[in-house]
Amino acid sequence: MELDDSPSEGEDEQLLDVSGLGVATWQRGDHRRWGGTNRKESTGAFQDILSVDSTSQYDDFHTIDWVRDVQKYRNQRKEILKKRHDSLRNKIYFYLYSGAGWIVISLVGLATGLCAGIIDIGASWLSDVKLGICANAFWLNQEECCWFQNNTAFGEEGCSEWYTWSEIFRDKSINAGSYIINYICFVLLSVSMASLAVLFVRAFAPYASGSGIPEIKTILSGFIIRGYFGVWTLITKSVTMVLAVAAGLSLGKEGPLVHVACCCGNLFAYLFPKYHLNEAKKREILSAASAAGVSVAFGAPIGGVLFSLEEVSYYFPLKTLWRSFFCALVAASILRWINPFGTDHLVMFYVEYDTPWSFYELIPFAVLGVLGGLYGAMFIKLNLWWCRYRKNSNLKRYPVLEVVILALITAIISYPNPYTRQNSSRLIANLFKECGPEDDTDLCDYQRNFTRVDQSIYPSAAARPGLKNALWQLSFALVVKAALTVFTFGIKVPAGLFIPTIAVGAIAGRIIGVSMEQMAFNHPAWFIFRSCSATGKCITAGLYAMVGAAACLGGVTRMTVSLVVIMFELTGGLVYIVPLMVAVVISKWVGDAFTKGGIYDSHIELNDYPFLDSKRDFIHNTLASDVMRPRRGMPELAVVTQDNMTMEDIEILLAETTFNAFPVIVSKESKRLVGLVYRKELAQALRKSRNKYDAVSQSKVYFTNDVPLYPAPDAPTSINLLYVVDQSPFQVTNQTPASTVVEIFRKLGLRTCLVTQNGTLQGIITKKDVLGHIGALDSIHPDSMLYQ
Amino acid sequence: MELDDSPSEGEDEQLLDVSGLGVATWQRGDHRRWGGTNRKESTGAFQDILSVDSTSQYDDFHTIDWVRDVQKYRNQRKEILKKRHDSLRNKIYFYLYSGAGWIVISLVGLATGLCAGIIDIGASWLSDVKLGICANAFWLNQEECCWFQNNTAFGEEGCSEWYTWSEIFRDKSINAGSYIINYICFVLLSVSMASLAVLFVRAFAPYASGSGIPEIKTILSGFIIRGYFGVWTLITKSVTMVLAVAAGLSLGKEGPLVHVACCCGNLFAYLFPKYHLNEAKKREILSAASAAGVSVAFGAPIGGVLFSLEEVSYYFPLKTLWRSFFCALVAASILRWINPFGTDHLVMFYVEYDTPWSFYELIPFAVLGVLGGLYGAMFIKLNLWWCRYRKNSNLKRYPVLEVVILALITAIISYPNPYTRQNSSRLIANLFKECGPEDDTDLCDYQRNFTRVDQSIYPSAAARPGLKNALWQLSFALVVKAALTVFTFGIKVPAGLFIPTIAVGAIAGRIIGVSMEQMAFNHPAWFIFRSCSATGKCITAGLYAMVGAAACLGGVTRMTVSLVVIMFELTGGLVYIVPLMVAVVISKWVGDAFTKGGIYDSHIELNDYPFLDSKRDFIHNTLASDVMRPRRGMPELAVVTQDNMTMEDIEILLAETTFNAFPVIVSKESKRLVGLVYRKELAQALRKSRNKYDAVSQSKVYFTNDVPLYPAPDAPTSINLLYVVDQSPFQVTNQTPASTVVEIFRKLGLRTCLVTQNGTLQGIITKKDVLGHIGALDSIHPDSMLYQ
Repeated sequence: MELDDSPSEGEDEQLLDVSGLGVATWQRGDHRRWGGTNRKESTGAFQDILSVDSTSQYDDFHTIDWVRDVQKYRNQRKEILKKRHDSLRNKIYFYLYSGAGWIVISLVGLATGLCAGIIDIGASWLSDVKLGICANAFWLNQEECCWFQNNTAFGEEGCSEWYTWSEIFRDKSINAGSYIINYICFVLLSVSMASLAVLFVRAFAPYASGSGIPEIKTILSGFIIRGYFGVWTLITKSVTMVLAVAAGLSLGKEGPLVHVACCCGNLFAYLFPKYHLNEAKKREILSAASAAGVSVAFGAPIGGVLFSLEEVSYYFPLKTLWRSFFCALVAASILRWINPFGTDHLVMFYVEYDTPWSFYELIPFAVLGVLGGLYGAMFIKLNLWWCRYRKNSNLKRYPVLEVVILALITAIISYPNPYTRQNSSRLIANLFKECGPEDDTDLCDYQRNFTRVDQSIYPSAAARPGLKNALWQLSFALVVKAALTVFTFGIKVPAGLFIPTIAVGAIAGRIIGVSMEQMAFNHPAWFIFRSCSATGKCITAGLYAMVGAAACLGGVTRMTVSLVVIMFELTGGLVYIVPLMVAVVISKWVGDAFTKGGIYDSHIELNDYPFLDSKRDFIHNTLASDVMRPRRGMPELAVVTQDNMTMEDIEILLAETTFNAFPVIVSKESKRLVGLVYRKELAQALRKSRNKYDAVSQSKVYFTNDVPLYPAPDAPTSINLLYVVDQSPFQVTNQTPASTVVEIFRKLGLRTCLVTQNGTLQGIITKKDVLGHIGALDSIHPDSMLYQ
Repeated sequence: MELDDSPSEGEDEQLLDVSGLGVATWQRGDHRRWGGTNRKESTGAFQDILSVDSTSQYDDFHTIDWVRDVQKYRNQRKEILKKRHDSLRNKIYFYLYSGAGWIVISLVGLATGLCAGIIDIGASWLSDVKLGICANAFWLNQEECCWFQNNTAFGEEGCSEWYTWSEIFRDKSINAGSYIINYICFVLLSVSMASLAVLFVRAFAPYASGSGIPEIKTILSGFIIRGYFGVWTLITKSVTMVLAVAAGLSLGKEGPLVHVACCCGNLFAYLFPKYHLNEAKKREILSAASAAGVSVAFGAPIGGVLFSLEEVSYYFPLKTLWRSFFCALVAASILRWINPFGTDHLVMFYVEYDTPWSFYELIPFAVLGVLGGLYGAMFIKLNLWWCRYRKNSNLKRYPVLEVVILALITAIISYPNPYTRQNSSRLIANLFKECGPEDDTDLCDYQRNFTRVDQSIYPSAAARPGLKNALWQLSFALVVKAALTVFTFGIKVPAGLFIPTIAVGAIAGRIIGVSMEQMAFNHPAWFIFRSCSATGKCITAGLYAMVGAAACLGGVTRMTVSLVVIMFELTGGLVYIVPLMVAVVISKWVGDAFTKGGIYDSHIELNDYPFLDSKRDFIHNTLASDVMRPRRGMPELAVVTQDNMTMEDIEILLAETTFNAFPVIVSKESKRLVGLVYRKELAQALRKSRNKYDAVSQSKVYFTNDVPLYPAPDAPTSINLLYVVDQSPFQVTNQTPASTVVEIFRKLGLRTCLVTQNGTLQGIITKKDVLGHIGALDSIHPDSMLYQ
């Protein structure tokens, strides 16, 4: 039986893995010093054990108790409510206390919007620096540079004011030599940006690596990882995200933006003890912050709120819904005001279509859904395989080298192909867009007429050679992006998954869209294409790109409503929800047939985080008695009796065990349950008794109000510690189905639950036991007779 | 101590109130026959008591036990999962069982869309019938009639093919006489439609009256009202809704549409025992259905889902979110396909603005928010006052007369004013709209030029006399609508609140909007108006109408996110979210300062429905021992002991008490808890024992496996009923804070919870006790020392 929530083996390893970068070692060591499993043999050492950190309620890498935290908040609030008439100061404090939520939320929204704006501008500029520089104003990116020179119609080669590196080093003529110079500069700059990013992460905040969403999910479900939302993490993540995106690695900034928003949330929660000192309340702020993160990442406030609700948050009361919405909206408004892309839209790939879709197009959309689901399942399997390989091989010792080599390979492969060379966001924007009248890229190489007034100036569907070329290049880009992302997600730089996945899906969708378009153009007599106009423009290839993106993202993350809403907010109209929904639902079904959960859940499992998934159903027939400790044949439960233990007995118990809590019972014989006492509080109370009340080792310790009025005359001072006992522990009977136990733990956010039978204590269940039980049964087929 | 969940006094009255219309009397009577509080004195009568309805798990007007229902579902599912390999039939059954949710949801979406389409078309046509009829095609409404005759630019007087009643009866000249004829026809038709509506409701389904949302909220929170979602209710509500809307009463069809959708949900749930026989699972379907209802009412699928989440549903797991979204989307797609308004939009008042708003406009928007909040609070207070008066006076005996008189007054007042005369939806559409170049109504009576090409053909802001006239008429309409709605919400016809509230808000908003516009036009030199163009067209009066509508609706219903999202889905752009949000949040704050909850919560309270509000915080310091029964000084708890009761003892206990469940304890002395046994199951088991196993009155009944192996030789057959005991009842200690108890009841959806102290049974808490406790404390100030 073990009440300690210390991380299990797998998690330990993962944290050591992070610690390969420096900082976490200390934290792990610190944690292990007094939370570990090494049993102290001599009772003399327990004074050391008792000196725990008394300022915080929970230890690092422990789970929180939602019910107790919420109760604490209620009591505190009632206290302040009562005192508010006493003085003006109390009144002001009361109003501050009541308004704290809205103040923090506003600040978080503001900060998130600002961070996102700065990151967007920085990443956009630094991405272009790889290609060249603006002649007279180095701080402008390519588009702005050309725009400021009134040279709006710049092609892929830039405008006159934009100098590629070869032009700076040699001259303005274009030849093979300058191509090689540009290539070399591109690769060198990419690699140096990536190296800088990984070195910063290593030096300042190892927690800044990765997307952060698996960890955020775990933390929001009630787990403590100190420093994960710290200031250093915030700064490091923001800076290195810019570097990593600019380095052209196959990663995005969406997941990391959620992490940055949560850091802001944690930071501003420090302003108010109401949130700072109450882990359950703090998580309300973090839920809202994660909504703001997605809101600025996609310019989708409603989608952000639903993402927070569906994917990230664990407890999401209605109050949080409203605040999340507010926070997301403030962040989006600030970002709009910063206007990082100069387009009055929050994201680069905002589009508006004007052609409706036809019913028969649901078939290609469904095909995209199937492909997206397959891609998602394949991606998750391959990525997990690679992450497991990294974990178990020597590779984990060289995170910097891994990033440098990956950046080198990425840069070398990416440069020759225009679609892999450019910034992923810009690529997505081009793929989502319909071809306009002035679009002269390869992708929009259609026959058009500028002379006849009676016909549309929009391009017809008749393809010219450039389009075929573009399709070949896109196919190559598809393979490259898909392959690189598998190896990139999991490296030690901030790495989001959304943008590369959207890019892969958009490429696939666009290819299928253009194929459909050409089919419709070449076979106007086919029944399904009858309704098309003579120019064959009844297929919106951009919509296919968007549906493909949704399908791939759905396959990888298994998001549903929030994904559709995010995509809906990117397009103008409600009309396009149906295709998106069809693709997302099919991709989810196909994906679920191959892998159990989305990429985030898989990474949570990979890292053995103590996350009690509320989506997965527990279908086994086990009972509470199968979940609880002690199991049959194991040593008896470590308990405290209410009236016959001495100071020394309890101190020995504390020293010899590592459990976080001890049930208090009436007597060893009757085993009737009185309550639960926590190690931390018990140790503090004992110390206080020794120091203040002259309690000695032989002093009797009572946990009841039935203290004998006249103790024996020669007995040392007895003490009553009933006040540290939690007299309202949760209890279930040993006949309770395990599925009900799981539900209680999920819904109430319990940390510990006691098991009784006919009123006598039988055992104890911790969140870890529940997780262990689920894990053990997951490998057993529910039909098996083991636990019938 | 009372375990019976029978309705409390107030509810009883309300139900009697409904029963004034006929059907519910029987239901009440039936309920009272075997669930009432009239204690049977003679034990001989208990055979009658034991013959309860065994087909359904719960009785009418009882609360459900979510945990047990979900557990039942899990067991059933596991059974089917296990058997699926046995035969092909089982395999098919398994797939049907797994897919049942999606099948039902699709059917519900389909049916809801169809119902909404038919209702929209019917209401639109019948509304116009009050004014006249289409000459050669009586089945067309005014707009379609004119449109079919290629007479698109019809004014308020209609086109040549549209005949007003006076034209049919007399001739085509317009004079005072024809006005009076039209007036009389209008009033007569209105009154007859309203009378028909109320008579239908009275004759076929009393439950079809009202908006239904308070009852739906209560049912979804886990209460049984049989027949509330029946087929008759569905048909009656659909038909009478058309009549009531067409009668021109100040009511809308949004709430009733939610009710209709839920009826569809209940209907299709009958197809699958999985949903039909499991009340908890059925509520998942109903949650999705209510999303579909709002979706078709406002053409807002996402808003509908959020409405279901925020306002209606109680338990909303993520699976339900996804299904609700699907259901809402199917319904919206079907409605779009039916295209009831011929505009390709789902609602009459869909708009797209193109002018952005300026920052200073937040001031008038905030003013609208304050006004909306005040209106909401005032409306709730007045409406509650009137409903209470109706309930306590003789008025409740004449529901038909009330409707007829109200319809008469409404018709008489409404006809002279064009804004009250027209269909509310059309009024709202006109108010939301910006004035177009061809708009020649009074409301758009601006100076315009059709000659100069260099200027916009859109009207300038220079007002002409018609506008002033329109404003006066609008002010009158505002007062009339607001006053009539107070008396209308609560009458015995289907009556939604959204449309009249939106109308009131839109009128107020439009008036303020036009005032702002005129101010900007007349004072172009003012600092804030500097940015306006020369024509002064920087104020969108339609946007003000929309913000006003949101503010009023927010004040009345206290919805937040869902309201903003619904309004956002009515407009084209994300840009207008900020004004809407400002207005809604301010209106909620202002409203909350005056009345505690929204109109639905107030009506739930008025009718004393057993609804455990999950939004309101419980802030009192009471303990579980204050909530539980028996209270101090009350008779002891009625319990069953595990091994020393005879058949007769138990039968007497059942006959003498009316409790729904009895705790089973080890012995009266130790009081250690074994489990809980439900009256229904216990009675059945006893009957079975008597009939099948020859048990007699003196037979020992055991509730334990420790049955003596060798009973006394002359003892009658003993029986073991352990199998009917719920061995995993929920239990809390008597020291548990009441707020935690409330939370457990809310989050787990409990029906009963046992209270223990040191392992011994102390008492029992039912949902009714929790509601009673909250109700009792609500009248006590939390600062008071009563329960410290």
